[in-house]
Amino acid sequence: MSLRQARTTLSVRTHGQGLTDITREVADFVRRSGIADGLLTAFIQHTSASLTVQENADPDVLADLNDFFRRIVREDPTLYRHTMEGPDDMPAHIRAALTSVQVSIPVLTGVMALGTWQGLYVFEHRARPHDRRVVLHLLGS
Amino acid sequence: MSLRQARTTLSVRTHGQGLTDITREVADFVRRSGIADGLLTAFIQHTSASLTVQENADPDVLADLNDFFRRIVREDPTLYRHTMEGPDDMPAHIRAALTSVQVSIPVLTGVMALGTWQGLYVFEHRARPHDRRVVLHLLGS
Amino acid sequence: MSLRQARTTLSVRTHGQGLTDITREVADFVRRSGIADGLLTAFIQHTSASLTVQENADPDVLADLNDFFRRIVREDPTLYRHTMEGPDDMPAHIRAALTSVQVSIPVLTGVMALGTWQGLYVFEHRARPHDRRVVLHLLGS
Repeated sequence: MSLRQARTTLSVRTHGQGLTDITREVADFVRRSGIADGLLTAFIQHTSASLTVQENADPDVLADLNDFFRRIVREDPTLYRHTMEGPDDMPAHIRAALTSVQVSIPVLTGVMALGTWQGLYVFEHRARPHDRRVVLHLLGS
Repeated sequence: MSLRQARTTLSVRTHGQGLTDITREVADFVRRSGIADGLLTAFIQHTSASLTVQENADPDVLADLNDFFRRIVREDPTLYRHTMEGPDDMPAHIRAALTSVQVSIPVLTGVMALGTWQGLYVFEHRARPHDRRVVLHLLGS
Repeated sequence: MSLRQARTTLSVRTHGQGLTDITREVADFVRRSGIADGLLTAFIQHTSASLTVQENADPDVLADLNDFFRRIVREDPTLYRHTMEGPDDMPAHIRAALTSVQVSIPVLTGVMALGTWQGLYVFEHRARPHDRRVVLHLLGS
C-alpha cells in the first residue's frame, strides 16, 4: 500500500452568526483526491469562526445551537477588555474556543465516515458575513 | 519504514447521561493492529453523544462533569425550537458541540500516549441508554 | 513519496490560570523534523490543562478568554463532589473538557497552516504553576 497526501483550501462565505454546511465541498475534495482510505482533516484559519459536526436534518437544531452560544457568551462590552473590534468580536473568540478549530474524519472507500445525521459546518461567530478559509488535508491510500 | 492503516468500529452501549470508559477497547484495537508507532483517531458518528478525555481515577470527577453540562445546558423546552424528539434532545446536541466529536492520540511502541490519569470516554447526553458507534482509525508503522 | 513520522514531547511551564504560547516551540519541532508536508498533532497529557488555538495579536483576548472560563465554571465547592484536590481542581477538569485535549494542523512546505492571527496555546486551568507535557507527532513527507 502506497500512502499519499492531498490538500486544498476552501473559501467559505458566511452570512453572519450561524452555521454554513460544507459537507458537500469536503466530500467533493475527498472524491477528487483519488484517495480511498485515510484520514481527512479540516482546519479553519480563524479565531472568530470555528468548525462543528452537527445534525443535518432539522434546521431548527442549527438555530437553537446558535442561540445557545449567544446566550452563554453575551455581547456585553462591560465584560471584556478587548472591545476595539466591536461588541461581537470578543464573544466570537470565546465561542470559537468552546467549539473546534479542527476536525478529523476517517475516510473509507472514498467516503467520510460521518454518521447518517452528521454534517460538517463552519460556525460563524461574528455578526457580519465573512470569507473564511478552511484547509483540507487528506492522508491515505 | 512502511506506513499502513487499520480501522474498526466500536459499538458502545451507554447508560443514559454520563460517561462510559472505552480506553481498554481502543487500546485493544491498537495492540491487535500490529502498528507500533502512529496516530490513533476516534470519531463518534452521532450528534447527541460525544468523546472526551478525562480523569480516570476518581468517579466523582465524571459525575461532576455530567452535572455541569446539565446545569449549563438546561432541559427547558421554552428555550428551544427543536423539541419534537423530547426535552433532552436539543440540550444533547449543544452538549455534544461543547465537547468533541473526534480525538486523535499519538501511539508509541504500541501504546496510546495518554497521560497517567487520562481515559477516553463516550459522553452520552441523552436521558436513555443508546448504542453508539465510534470509528477507530490508526495510521502508522 | 515516502512518508515518515517524527515525535517529541514538550515540557511547558505554566504560570497559573491563563494561556502560554507554544507556537514557536511547535514550529521549531516541525522545522527540525525535515518533514515538509504532512499533519502535525499536539496532544496534552493532562485533564486540568488543555490546548487552544487563539488570537496572537492582542493579549487582552487571552485575558478575556480566561475570565470567561472563570465566570462560567465557578470555584464554588458546594457545586462539586470532587473537592479533595482543592477548589480549583474540579473547575479545571470542566474547563479542559470545554476546550481541547488535542489539535491537528496541516503542514505545508515546512510551515504549519495557521492563519495570520492564530497561535497555539497551553491553557492552564489550575491556580498554581504546573509543568505540562505536550506530545507532538508529525506524519508526512
